Amino acid sequence: MKQFNDENFLLETSTAQRLYHEYAEGLPIIDYHCHLIPEYVANDHRFPNLSKIWLEGDHYKWRAMRTNGVDERFITGKDTTDWEKFEKWAETVPYTMRNPLYHWSHLELKTAFGVEKLLNPSTAREIYDVCSDKLANGELTARGLMRHYNVEVVCTTDDPVDSLEYHKKVKDDGFEIRMLPTWRPDKAMAVECPADYQAYIRQLAEVSGVQISSFDNVIEALKVRHDFFESVGCRLSDHGIEEFYAEEYTKDEIDAIFNKIYKNGEELTVAEIKKFKTAMMVEFAIMDHDSGWTQQFHYGAIRNNNSRMMAQLGPDTGFDSIGDFTVAKKMSKFLDMLASQDKLGKTIIYNLNPRDNELVATMLGNFQDGRYGAGKIQFGSGWWFLDQKDGMEKQMTALSNLGLLSRFVGMLTDSRSFLSYPRHEYFRRTLCNLLGNDIEKGLLPASELDFIGKEIVTKVCYGNAKEYFKF
Amino acid sequence: MKQFNDENFLLETSTAQRLYHEYAEGLPIIDYHCHLIPEYVANDHRFPNLSKIWLEGDHYKWRAMRTNGVDERFITGKDTTDWEKFEKWAETVPYTMRNPLYHWSHLELKTAFGVEKLLNPSTAREIYDVCSDKLANGELTARGLMRHYNVEVVCTTDDPVDSLEYHKKVKDDGFEIRMLPTWRPDKAMAVECPADYQAYIRQLAEVSGVQISSFDNVIEALKVRHDFFESVGCRLSDHGIEEFYAEEYTKDEIDAIFNKIYKNGEELTVAEIKKFKTAMMVEFAIMDHDSGWTQQFHYGAIRNNNSRMMAQLGPDTGFDSIGDFTVAKKMSKFLDMLASQDKLGKTIIYNLNPRDNELVATMLGNFQDGRYGAGKIQFGSGWWFLDQKDGMEKQMTALSNLGLLSRFVGMLTDSRSFLSYPRHEYFRRTLCNLLGNDIEKGLLPASELDFIGKEIVTKVCYGNAKEYFKF
Amino acid sequence: MKQFNDENFLLETSTAQRLYHEYAEGLPIIDYHCHLIPEYVANDHRFPNLSKIWLEGDHYKWRAMRTNGVDERFITGKDTTDWEKFEKWAETVPYTMRNPLYHWSHLELKTAFGVEKLLNPSTAREIYDVCSDKLANGELTARGLMRHYNVEVVCTTDDPVDSLEYHKKVKDDGFEIRMLPTWRPDKAMAVECPADYQAYIRQLAEVSGVQISSFDNVIEALKVRHDFFESVGCRLSDHGIEEFYAEEYTKDEIDAIFNKIYKNGEELTVAEIKKFKTAMMVEFAIMDHDSGWTQQFHYGAIRNNNSRMMAQLGPDTGFDSIGDFTVAKKMSKFLDMLASQDKLGKTIIYNLNPRDNELVATMLGNFQDGRYGAGKIQFGSGWWFLDQKDGMEKQMTALSNLGLLSRFVGMLTDSRSFLSYPRHEYFRRTLCNLLGNDIEKGLLPASELDFIGKEIVTKVCYGNAKEYFKF
Repeated sequence: MKQFNDENFLLETSTAQRLYHEYAEGLPIIDYHCHLIPEYVANDHRFPNLSKIWLEGDHYKWRAMRTNGVDERFITGKDTTDWEKFEKWAETVPYTMRNPLYHWSHLELKTAFGVEKLLNPSTAREIYDVCSDKLANGELTARGLMRHYNVEVVCTTDDPVDSLEYHKKVKDDGFEIRMLPTWRPDKAMAVECPADYQAYIRQLAEVSGVQISSFDNVIEALKVRHDFFESVGCRLSDHGIEEFYAEEYTKDEIDAIFNKIYKNGEELTVAEIKKFKTAMMVEFAIMDHDSGWTQQFHYGAIRNNNSRMMAQLGPDTGFDSIGDFTVAKKMSKFLDMLASQDKLGKTIIYNLNPRDNELVATMLGNFQDGRYGAGKIQFGSGWWFLDQKDGMEKQMTALSNLGLLSRFVGMLTDSRSFLSYPRHEYFRRTLCNLLGNDIEKGLLPASELDFIGKEIVTKVCYGNAKEYFKF
Repeated sequence: MKQFNDENFLLETSTAQRLYHEYAEGLPIIDYHCHLIPEYVANDHRFPNLSKIWLEGDHYKWRAMRTNGVDERFITGKDTTDWEKFEKWAETVPYTMRNPLYHWSHLELKTAFGVEKLLNPSTAREIYDVCSDKLANGELTARGLMRHYNVEVVCTTDDPVDSLEYHKKVKDDGFEIRMLPTWRPDKAMAVECPADYQAYIRQLAEVSGVQISSFDNVIEALKVRHDFFESVGCRLSDHGIEEFYAEEYTKDEIDAIFNKIYKNGEELTVAEIKKFKTAMMVEFAIMDHDSGWTQQFHYGAIRNNNSRMMAQLGPDTGFDSIGDFTVAKKMSKFLDMLASQDKLGKTIIYNLNPRDNELVATMLGNFQDGRYGAGKIQFGSGWWFLDQKDGMEKQMTALSNLGLLSRFVGMLTDSRSFLSYPRHEYFRRTLCNLLGNDIEKGLLPASELDFIGKEIVTKVCYGNAKEYFKF
Repeated sequence: MKQFNDENFLLETSTAQRLYHEYAEGLPIIDYHCHLIPEYVANDHRFPNLSKIWLEGDHYKWRAMRTNGVDERFITGKDTTDWEKFEKWAETVPYTMRNPLYHWSHLELKTAFGVEKLLNPSTAREIYDVCSDKLANGELTARGLMRHYNVEVVCTTDDPVDSLEYHKKVKDDGFEIRMLPTWRPDKAMAVECPADYQAYIRQLAEVSGVQISSFDNVIEALKVRHDFFESVGCRLSDHGIEEFYAEEYTKDEIDAIFNKIYKNGEELTVAEIKKFKTAMMVEFAIMDHDSGWTQQFHYGAIRNNNSRMMAQLGPDTGFDSIGDFTVAKKMSKFLDMLASQDKLGKTIIYNLNPRDNELVATMLGNFQDGRYGAGKIQFGSGWWFLDQKDGMEKQMTALSNLGLLSRFVGMLTDSRSFLSYPRHEYFRRTLCNLLGNDIEKGLLPASELDFIGKEIVTKVCYGNAKEYFKF
């Protein structure tokens, strides 16, 4: 019987264990997409206790607690203490067995704090105290944790109007780990509400120094900001979209739509919104292509399903779920709108519904292009709800069967927590386990173990990302 | 090599075997959703032979026989004998290998009749005679079978206009196993055909004693029946729907739609039908919420695909299949219409297309609410075509990864057969096998075996349902 | 540790090995759907080198090379040599690990040429020379390869206007392997472009000898050709469709639509196109039914996604992918339009998106009919992108769980290459592995090994196809 969470966790065969320990284990981490708060890195934030670093803002844990019958007071309430919340979380943990939280939590306790006990009500106090002490008094500050986990680069997620002051401060400080911004212009496309859009465009005008009275001005202002992001080290963009947009449009139509919403403050029709979003996405894609950046698309979530809780807690509080949008034709057409004018650059597509895995994995192949090097179009690693053993295995198996696993840029945390880096370890173990099992079963040749270690394991875990993003 | 259908059937590891034999095996059965004929329980029906109890009305077996090339005469024909039909079924059985029927059938023969031989043409006569004798002369009547399988509660499926006389008789008899009704008001929403709807509403008026001349009267009459069902022990409702309905509507619109179909006998438009169904589903949900019942939604089937056979044999004769409806946004909106007015009670969602597993498993989390206790919104166990090892494993794995398996209310037969109770055993073995494998692989800690046995196995197989439904 | 690609490749258990070696290994191949070039068989084509037989036209390999960063010059370029292209392919092969190409390629090298070395840059020259020599000078011509792989029948894919001269020549030559045509009338339904359609109909008029001035004439002319195909041995039709069509239509509407496009050369509306395609598919289905043929539907691909490469290289060059069409209701209605008039004959449905596996597997059951014998409606073997271990396992598991695996007509290459026959071996190994594992796990009774070997393995690999198609 294998031991839980020991050095060979997730590694079912001796070949898998060799691949992990000999090739993957010591590699640095390139976390090319995350939601860290840049200020925390800039100020080398110190967390006063385990509750603050572990429970605050972690909507995965919140959902589990709600499902386990914990009252909202002990999840997001203002009138409960950090310890009380932690206690409720500790009560919940044993009931998360088979959920990735059970693995993540124990892996984080072990790798960050050296705690190997299982978390439950009887160990809660001791674990809380030990970990809180290390956080409050030891080396495990924001930067300390990044060092501890051998991080090389992180890419945060930032709005085009952001000053990036914290990114600059981190660089100026001489912090040895690079923190780079990512261009996430969702608000510049959010034309559902005229007032919000107008306010955003005015802000954009201000920070860019470009006076905005037409659609062309918007693009000009965004280009100014795009160049500014580039100057601070940005090499990726990111878009959170429900579906892909690929409507036919003319320049005149887009000008008129812009004037309607921005000048007149009128609500747009659904057809106008889709045309406008198409135009924006094309413009963003061209900027990214021309700058040699990588564009990322995270599609398929239905957000804020619970309107009562949205009113109470706001977005990103654990009320989002997987959608079932029909996307293949639009995704294809959007990519082709760019490819046909030779403006399709490096691209990563992340799906949220695993039933789209094969669709996405074959879509890549339509737009791969030897002129850009290997793996130009990437199938994003298991995202959000799929960021677990089963989800990662299915994503990698679809990619393997329908594309080239060897050219995959691998894992990212997508997290706002400084304790999420063990997800890279989790991914690496899962990858090595898949490959090791294949070798043991004779599906891959045992003679090629070193090639697999060096050319697949090492590169998927580190080398491909390093080469692909050109940080 | 493991033996087929022995005491460790489906249990691949010794840990799985321990979990099953030490925790699951002896638990009573709560069959909270089935299609038993209440009259059979009330009259303690005796089946004259194996064909009558096993083949009559079993459209799973009928489909397999048709696929195997058996002429319809030997499936549903009036001019063939019970034995002739059984003979054709016995010829088919060996060709069902890898189909759940092969497992179900042998498990039923073994657990009900002690028959361990494989069913095929050479054993057919002997098996038929042995089993028929036990049915005709032994303890295996309707009630006898329920006792034999250690059933504690069954919930049948009943129309609001039903008299529930048989449920009352069973209770009055002092039968130690509870048979409770379930509120299934599909016909009250079936506004596709004006004449049928008018007839149904007239019947509803009669049994409820409420004169119906407006939509409000309909709701009033249904509430009378809802209270009546409650008085006979009903604690669940059930809805068979293709898709979820969540249209915006006003009270005036619904009144007008009702008058159009009921008073004028006019056909409704598709838009009107959807509005009306939304309104009905909201009203039903509120009744259930206010009564503390659990509402069930079985969605996604396409029924009666073969119009020639529908004309010949009627519904539920094996001509239904899995649909590919787009449901996420409507499901979300419908649940939110209730949650936003704090009227969303306990809810179980069953999908028919396994590609929706992850969608449903994440939808739950949007509406979990600690104020109701653990697991308020449930992901229904593998339904109909998915009611087999692969389907159950996928459902439980999706639920595990995206929610809490530990809070699952578990299995139900959904069957009209008194021989279907071994499906609970099949489910329990499958559950224990998943958990046992996880322990053996180090994915769950071996030290927690007793917790897993008591808090997960025991509760998913029995305790959660008992607590959740509050029979 | 199992060896890669040895005699027990893919066969994980000794029972699987017994099933394969004792029952499956020696069976002839019935390749009932492929895209061989008939002229090559007629002329017993000799390939001058490995590049010509292996890389020319193989868009699977092309996609992999593009993904691996190979410049298009070395894939489809006119200015590079066969050896240069092969060299780039050999560089790519190690990076295809876990992709089916890695398995196919080495299985083909081994079974056709006896080459057991792994293909990579260091072995490329030697392998190229050895194989090219055998092709240029040995027995491995087109016909020689078909003999080598113990092929019994192949069914090519042909347009109704095709002269079938090569099929007749092959028969007249007395070649012991039958090459039969398949009726693929996609162009007769391609009413998107009036000019192309007019040209096609004129060609049809010419080859059929039927003067065409009405829709009835079209059907009459097609019937003449259908009879002609029948006379040359055709027993199958095939349709490549994105979605299923099942619109209501009248004869008058179809006449008007035909006149609009054919006589007036006007573009049709989307609604007209769908009606017309429905009518054509119904007519084709009736012809097939009345002739006792089997109709095949390959649905769900999105073709030619990359318009720049389409302009450069034309169709079928590796720019196709998996779609996400909603099909269940239309598929059901189309089949019912035929079944309700008793004109639904033998039918095979192939889906491209594996998320439809369960949908298709249950659709079959709605239209099975004992009057036609076992397995009248078939779930097509893993198609195109799904033509690999994972895809085949999922298709067979869905079919097993929701239908009868035992009645499956099994594998086909769907290939234009004379080196693709090992895919049958790959399929047989995969099938035996599934069944062998089930026996070892006690999911099937070990006592029935011989039944499984004779009645399932042998028939799925050979016997069912032989009986079903009635060549």
